[in-house]
Amino acid sequence: MTARDPGRSDRLLRALMREPVDMTPVWLMRQAGRYLPEYRALRAQAGSFMALCQTPELACEATLQPVRRFPLDAAILFSDILTIPDAMGLGLSFSEGEGPRFARPIRDAHDVAALKVPDPGAQLRYVPETVRQARHALDGACPLIGFSGSPWTLATYMVEGQGSSTFRRIKGLLFDDPKTLARLLDVLVAAVGAYLNAQVEAGAQALMLFDTWGGSLAPAHFLRYSRDPMAEVVARLLRHREGRAVPVVIFTKGGGGSLEALADTGCDALGLDWMTSLAAARARVGDRVALQGNLDPLALYAPPERLRAEVAAVLADFGAGPGHVFNLGHGVLPDVDPEQVALCVEAVHAQGRAR
Amino acid sequence: MTARDPGRSDRLLRALMREPVDMTPVWLMRQAGRYLPEYRALRAQAGSFMALCQTPELACEATLQPVRRFPLDAAILFSDILTIPDAMGLGLSFSEGEGPRFARPIRDAHDVAALKVPDPGAQLRYVPETVRQARHALDGACPLIGFSGSPWTLATYMVEGQGSSTFRRIKGLLFDDPKTLARLLDVLVAAVGAYLNAQVEAGAQALMLFDTWGGSLAPAHFLRYSRDPMAEVVARLLRHREGRAVPVVIFTKGGGGSLEALADTGCDALGLDWMTSLAAARARVGDRVALQGNLDPLALYAPPERLRAEVAAVLADFGAGPGHVFNLGHGVLPDVDPEQVALCVEAVHAQGRAR
Repeated sequence: MTARDPGRSDRLLRALMREPVDMTPVWLMRQAGRYLPEYRALRAQAGSFMALCQTPELACEATLQPVRRFPLDAAILFSDILTIPDAMGLGLSFSEGEGPRFARPIRDAHDVAALKVPDPGAQLRYVPETVRQARHALDGACPLIGFSGSPWTLATYMVEGQGSSTFRRIKGLLFDDPKTLARLLDVLVAAVGAYLNAQVEAGAQALMLFDTWGGSLAPAHFLRYSRDPMAEVVARLLRHREGRAVPVVIFTKGGGGSLEALADTGCDALGLDWMTSLAAARARVGDRVALQGNLDPLALYAPPERLRAEVAAVLADFGAGPGHVFNLGHGVLPDVDPEQVALCVEAVHAQGRAR
Repeated sequence: MTARDPGRSDRLLRALMREPVDMTPVWLMRQAGRYLPEYRALRAQAGSFMALCQTPELACEATLQPVRRFPLDAAILFSDILTIPDAMGLGLSFSEGEGPRFARPIRDAHDVAALKVPDPGAQLRYVPETVRQARHALDGACPLIGFSGSPWTLATYMVEGQGSSTFRRIKGLLFDDPKTLARLLDVLVAAVGAYLNAQVEAGAQALMLFDTWGGSLAPAHFLRYSRDPMAEVVARLLRHREGRAVPVVIFTKGGGGSLEALADTGCDALGLDWMTSLAAARARVGDRVALQGNLDPLALYAPPERLRAEVAAVLADFGAGPGHVFNLGHGVLPDVDPEQVALCVEAVHAQGRAR
C-alpha cells in the first residue's frame, strides 16, 4: 500500500461513529469490479467469478485493487452476497448477463427444515481467510469492511432461485406459509451473525448488511421480514474489537420510507440510495445514526464539471457536522471510466473538508 | 351495463375530492388486461396490442370488460401510456415479453427540435373517440378515468428507446445537456396537456398521470424534471366539466420520499405504491389531497382469508374519514386469477363502508 496517511487510516471508522473527521471519508459500493482493467485481468486469471471469490489470494487482490488506485477511505471485502446459501448447498452459479442462479432453490417447509447453518470456519473458510490476508496487506492504510446479504435478501434469492421483478415465490411463501418463511429467516439470522462475526475475528473493522430486496415489501411486511431479522443479526454481532468499536451499517435499497425503523435496529449507520434526501434523512434519524451515501451512480458518466457539482450537492444536502460517509446510492456500473471514479473521490476530499 | 347503483356512479369522484362516501371506492390499475379471458379473446381479434388500442370499438370493449365483470367503482380508458410519442412519429411496437420499443428514439437536440405536439383530434383521434364510446356505453354506471404518461416517463422511454434498468441515456441527457432535456419536457407538457383535455372534452370524468419512472431520480432532479413538468400539466387542465370537478390523480412509482412536493402540483389525489404507508402519507399530505392505493399486487395470489386480511390492513392503514380510493400499489399481473380480483373488490366494499 501507499505511505501511511493518518487521516485515511481511520476517518471512515470515526465518521461511522459520528465523531469529527478532517475530511469526509469516501468509498464506493462495487469499487472493486469490472470497470477496472486490473480486475478484468484478475477475473480472467481466476476462470470464473466464484473461483475469484473462493480463492483468498485472488479475492484479497481484488479487495486491494481499488484502494491502491484511488485514495479511498476504506477497502471492502471482495466477495458475493450469496456465499451463505451456496455454502448451504443450493449450488450458486452466475450466467453471463443474467445474474446469480441457484440450482437447488428452497420451495417448501421440507427444504427449509433441511437447511443447516454453515460453519464459517469450514465451508465458508475462504471468506475469513480473504479478510485475514486483506487486513494484513492493507497494514492499516485504511479500514477493511466486511459484509453479508441481509436475511430477507438471502431468503429472496434462495426461494426465487434467481433475481425477480415480482418476487412471486417469496411473497407466495409470505402469504401462504408465513411460519416456514419465519423459520427460513431464523436460520439465516444465525448464519449471517456467525458469518459476520467470523469476519470481525479475522480482522474486519466495520460491517455492512446489504438489504437489496427489502424495498420490495409493504411497510408492515418490511418490519416483520426484513427489519426485525436485521435487528436480530445486529444483536448477535461482536461490536468491539482491538480496542475500538466495529460499526455496523445497514443499507436497504428503496428503504427511504422506513428510516426510523432501520435506525432502531441498533446499527451505527444507514446507507441511503440516491432517491432519499440526506437532509430529510438526517432530520428524521441523524441524531441516532451516521449516514452513508448517496450520489446517483449515473452521475459518474457526467462531464467532469457536472460530476463535481453533483458531488457538491450531495455534501451540501448532508450539511455541516460529523456523521457522513460519502458513497454512491448503489454500485459502480461495469462500464464507468476509472478516471471518473478518481475525479469523484478527489472532489469529495477537496470539498468535504473538516466536518 | 348492470342496473344503476347510485353509489357506484359517483363514489369515486366524491372520494377523490375528499367528500364522504357510502363505502370506499375501488378500481385497480391494469384492471383491463391479460388476466381476463375475455380480454385475451379481444386481443386475439385485434391482431396486435396497438391495433387494439387504436380501434375505438375494441378499446371501448376492453375498457368495459372489467366493470361488467366486477362491481368496480370506475372504468379507466384502455390505452397505452406511449400513444403520444407514437403519434410524434417514433414508431412504437411491442415485442413479446420485452415491453415497448421505439424504432426512432430521441437522441439529441436535433431530434428534439424536430418534435411537434400531436393534435389529439388528428393522429391521436382514436383516443378521445374511445373515451366518447366508453362514456356512452357506461351510461353513468360508474365514472370513466382518462390518463397519460407523465412528461418525464414519456421522455425516458423516448430517449432510452425502451425500458431501462439504469436510465443511462436519459440521465446522460440530464447531466450532459440539460437544456435539451428541458426542451423535450416542454414539448411533452404541451402534448400531455392537450391530450388529457381532449379526453375530458370527450367525456373523461377524472384524470390520472402515470409517472412510472419518476422514482429513478435523485430528489432534486425529481423536482426539476418530473414533479415540475407534472405541475405544469396540471395547470393546463380543464378541471370542471358537466357541472362538477374533474379530479386529477398523480402516481409516481417510488415517489414516497416526495409526497409533499407531489401534493404541491395542484392535483387532487396521489396514487401510492405499496411501499408507502397510507397512514404516514396521510399524516404528511392527507389534509391537502386524497390518497389512492396501495395493496401489494402480489397479495392477489394469497389464499382468500389472507387476501381479505391484507385488504383490511390497507383500509385500517388509511383509517377513518373520507379521501381514500382503494387500489393496488401497481398493476394487476397477467396470471392473476379473476376470482381473486372479485374477492378483493368484494372485501373492499364489505369492509370499507361509510367513510
